[in-house]
Amino acid sequence: LDYQHVQVPFEITLWIMLASLAKIGFHLYNKLPSVVPESCLLIFVGLIMGGIIYGFNDKSPPVMDSDIFFLYLLPPIVLDAGYFMPSRPFFENIGTILLYAVMGTIWNVFGIGFSLYGICQVKAFRLQDVSLLHNLLFGSLIAAVDPVAVLAVFEEIHVNEKLHILVFGESLLNDAVTVVLYKLFRSFCEMPTIKTMDVFAGVGKFFVVGLGGVLVGLTFGMTAAFTTRFTKDIRVIEPLFVFLYSYLSYLTAEMFHLSGIVAIIACAMGMKRYVEANISLKSHTTVKYFMKMWSSVSDTLIFIFLGVSTIGENHEWNWPYICFTVIFCLLWRALGVLVLTFFVNRFHVNTITSKDQFIIAYGGLRGAICFSLVFLLPDFHRKKLFIAATTVVILFTVFVQGMTIRPLVDLLAVKRKRESAPTVGEQIHIRFLDHLLAGIEDISGHWGQYYWKDKLEYFNSKYLQKILLREYDQPKSSIVLLYEKLERKHAIELAEAGQLGHGLSHPSLLNNDRTVITDKKLEDTLNPPVLDNIQEILARNLYRIRRTGPAYNRHTLPGETEPVEHAKEILILRHKSL
Amino acid sequence: LDYQHVQVPFEITLWIMLASLAKIGFHLYNKLPSVVPESCLLIFVGLIMGGIIYGFNDKSPPVMDSDIFFLYLLPPIVLDAGYFMPSRPFFENIGTILLYAVMGTIWNVFGIGFSLYGICQVKAFRLQDVSLLHNLLFGSLIAAVDPVAVLAVFEEIHVNEKLHILVFGESLLNDAVTVVLYKLFRSFCEMPTIKTMDVFAGVGKFFVVGLGGVLVGLTFGMTAAFTTRFTKDIRVIEPLFVFLYSYLSYLTAEMFHLSGIVAIIACAMGMKRYVEANISLKSHTTVKYFMKMWSSVSDTLIFIFLGVSTIGENHEWNWPYICFTVIFCLLWRALGVLVLTFFVNRFHVNTITSKDQFIIAYGGLRGAICFSLVFLLPDFHRKKLFIAATTVVILFTVFVQGMTIRPLVDLLAVKRKRESAPTVGEQIHIRFLDHLLAGIEDISGHWGQYYWKDKLEYFNSKYLQKILLREYDQPKSSIVLLYEKLERKHAIELAEAGQLGHGLSHPSLLNNDRTVITDKKLEDTLNPPVLDNIQEILARNLYRIRRTGPAYNRHTLPGETEPVEHAKEILILRHKSL
Repeated sequence: LDYQHVQVPFEITLWIMLASLAKIGFHLYNKLPSVVPESCLLIFVGLIMGGIIYGFNDKSPPVMDSDIFFLYLLPPIVLDAGYFMPSRPFFENIGTILLYAVMGTIWNVFGIGFSLYGICQVKAFRLQDVSLLHNLLFGSLIAAVDPVAVLAVFEEIHVNEKLHILVFGESLLNDAVTVVLYKLFRSFCEMPTIKTMDVFAGVGKFFVVGLGGVLVGLTFGMTAAFTTRFTKDIRVIEPLFVFLYSYLSYLTAEMFHLSGIVAIIACAMGMKRYVEANISLKSHTTVKYFMKMWSSVSDTLIFIFLGVSTIGENHEWNWPYICFTVIFCLLWRALGVLVLTFFVNRFHVNTITSKDQFIIAYGGLRGAICFSLVFLLPDFHRKKLFIAATTVVILFTVFVQGMTIRPLVDLLAVKRKRESAPTVGEQIHIRFLDHLLAGIEDISGHWGQYYWKDKLEYFNSKYLQKILLREYDQPKSSIVLLYEKLERKHAIELAEAGQLGHGLSHPSLLNNDRTVITDKKLEDTLNPPVLDNIQEILARNLYRIRRTGPAYNRHTLPGETEPVEHAKEILILRHKSL
Repeated sequence: LDYQHVQVPFEITLWIMLASLAKIGFHLYNKLPSVVPESCLLIFVGLIMGGIIYGFNDKSPPVMDSDIFFLYLLPPIVLDAGYFMPSRPFFENIGTILLYAVMGTIWNVFGIGFSLYGICQVKAFRLQDVSLLHNLLFGSLIAAVDPVAVLAVFEEIHVNEKLHILVFGESLLNDAVTVVLYKLFRSFCEMPTIKTMDVFAGVGKFFVVGLGGVLVGLTFGMTAAFTTRFTKDIRVIEPLFVFLYSYLSYLTAEMFHLSGIVAIIACAMGMKRYVEANISLKSHTTVKYFMKMWSSVSDTLIFIFLGVSTIGENHEWNWPYICFTVIFCLLWRALGVLVLTFFVNRFHVNTITSKDQFIIAYGGLRGAICFSLVFLLPDFHRKKLFIAATTVVILFTVFVQGMTIRPLVDLLAVKRKRESAPTVGEQIHIRFLDHLLAGIEDISGHWGQYYWKDKLEYFNSKYLQKILLREYDQPKSSIVLLYEKLERKHAIELAEAGQLGHGLSHPSLLNNDRTVITDKKLEDTLNPPVLDNIQEILARNLYRIRRTGPAYNRHTLPGETEPVEHAKEILILRHKSL
């Protein structure tokens, strides 16, 4: 037996296997995941595992290594989040998101830091030796909302798109603020005296860290898109580039002390549309599937490790400090959301309702990022207290808030996510309105989001596409791409239902020689080359397809339903029409 | 700048990136890969890289770590090889393959070892201090044909299936023999005296190492298949299990000093059909695509590292020894193939022609496995000589033999691979013959391959499928699966050509109300439940589909052609028929 030799890969594989099997286990009992969020179950499995290790070894189980977390577990989740980020709501609310992420986080850091310092002055609690700087440092790591925890809970409760993007976008973009404040306070703790210069330098760093991350990410994203121009003869390594370049962007940003999370998100969002157009359909399926798989495994491992690391003797249980930390976290977040939303609502027509505000405040879950940061703290005599407080805050937010948020969403009747995606008609109208608003903004001289979006789109189709896309002479509009995707899906569904032969011989399909007449009206709203393309395909196919059967109604176009369900439906409808 | 922190993942990512970009680079010039095999180009890139590192650092560039090779680079390639192994030709020729792998390798080891010992006795060469055991040890590592090198070259030359499986199967299965002989001679080298017992124990180990590997592999394969029964609600982690279980089988086998290569191949071949039936179509695409991608990257990295490691001062250039090593490698392999094939041909109707024999002997390429094994040798004063000889043999076989084998195959007019896969009709007949031969063997009391195959198939459908497959009450025959696959492909092709709407309204599709009458004749040759299933689907669809147009002729059924080409063809034919 030679265990030493294979130890590292063997144990990694076993942990991943454990995580995957735990996931399967939960889903065997359908009722469990609908009551308790998966993250709670996973932490629970971790607690049990930690208990077993502690019981057998009689020493604390291994703690999640911060390096492993930041270098290997976090990037897949952030990449997945960035790649599948709905870009329209994100950019529509970018101002609000940034306000929450930057001002909200600063507010929370200082609020929690100063009020905990106040608590430390109470003699009965025996905490007088915790300085203001240490409290602020602790505030900087505990204030940040965690994207992994937020994603795990919000994916299951299906709130409306705007609310989701506000909470989730904030949790992603606050990374830049957290990085700066955390490093600033940590260096202040080690400095003998703090000069005014250092404080100003810290403020300057915000912009460097955030914008630097965006720049690094976009550079790698564009390089990735450019690289996939040349992979036509060697399709099999196409998916690799998506992963390699985004990972490189993360590592490069980390190397220069920029925000890795911001970089990888910028990279993923930047390359997405070009890469999708360049690579083959199978490569794209692989990219999407593997990204989801990878982030799902990372996510599982993080929560299990969180549970395992909780067990042990790393903690100093000073309950007043811990309880007040939990209370202040809730309090300052609620206050922050109220104040910031007041300002946001003054400048927007689409206001954020008080229900939404409650969910935003309540959805501020803490997770593995705080946990890793607290272990990265320099050794000082109260580190174990901070570890204990962080652990309790994480467990409280994930268990109590995570488990009650779904009933609360039901109770408050918060606006839910629209189940069906917009139809082709709606998409055309949205586009039309975009152009219209861009025109109005241009005439009125107001440089709003539509103006910039239009300019960016122009720059994109005029220069970027020609450099980054393979077939730059045939830019396909999103509607044409959507149509092709739908037709492909339709074909697969027909085939899966064994209905292709059937469908082909169906007599009702012959009355299709009407020509398309309504498309003419769109001519003014879309630019000519795109329109030609759309019209050609629409004229040839779309109206005929929509007549093939009731399969193409409003509900099945977006097709979030199960393929098997779907096929059955087609089958039943076919039989009826026969 | 904090490079230390991200160094490990950063450098790994950069190496993979370099490998992928090199691959893209070669394919930009279409002519290059058709003349020079990719493996040669990659080694060449590695040589240049090594030269640059050597030039700048003034010390030898880093050598490929044997642990990295065996634990991380080799498994993906072997998994890919095992998963996509054509099982029918493999099992039909298993006897011949095992004879080549076991007897052929032993023959080569002792042949090369003893004759090099003979060379060492020539005083002019100054090699008297190399003992017989050391020569045999060297023989054991240089004799084994390398699966990575063989695959890289044989994938490009498209020889007939039987020839391919003979060379490739041998290169995979000789691992068990190599492991045993290499470890045996290495331990002999360190022992003061060798007892007869040790030699016998060595012979016994053959069976333990080989059969143990098969056992470990099959155990993990069956577990993997069983696990995928329960992934219905959580499709996204399905592909993971294929990779995790096969990697675990490899690591477990290595841990117990069994043959990891044999284990991973047994695992992949064992789980394939059950996993395929259990997981979703998208998961399966991801599995296949990712396997290919991963093995392709591993392969690229191995050849680049081979090149890099060649540069440096690790070598002792004793030219007589090196030249005679190359000559003996060629000579003994040629002799071995001749002698073994003589015996094989006496017992087979389908003989191996002398052209095939030449290609088998000539295709015995050496690669990274020899290279890693020679670096794993215990330190002794002539290790550098062995490293030099191994390097030269690898470069000679990969460059000279790898580059000339394609012209030689052309020159000798070796039977090529059949371009088109068998049609459905052929498949039914092959199956019919299998059942017939199984029956004949049963009656005549001869327990041949057909008898065993039939028994295995019975055991599979009676027990294994019920345990391992999700929908065990509806076992789909391979022909039904093939048909479904074809129909799905057909539908996608139609959609991609924008012809779905067109096709549906085609008037010639209405004359399809003929019922199926010829299927009755098959009833005797296929077992009833499968037949019902086939007949139901055939009756509903197959004959109609085949009438939809000339798209379903003999040539397009297997469909190895490009989808775009194909769609165009359909388009043209459609237009003609209109």
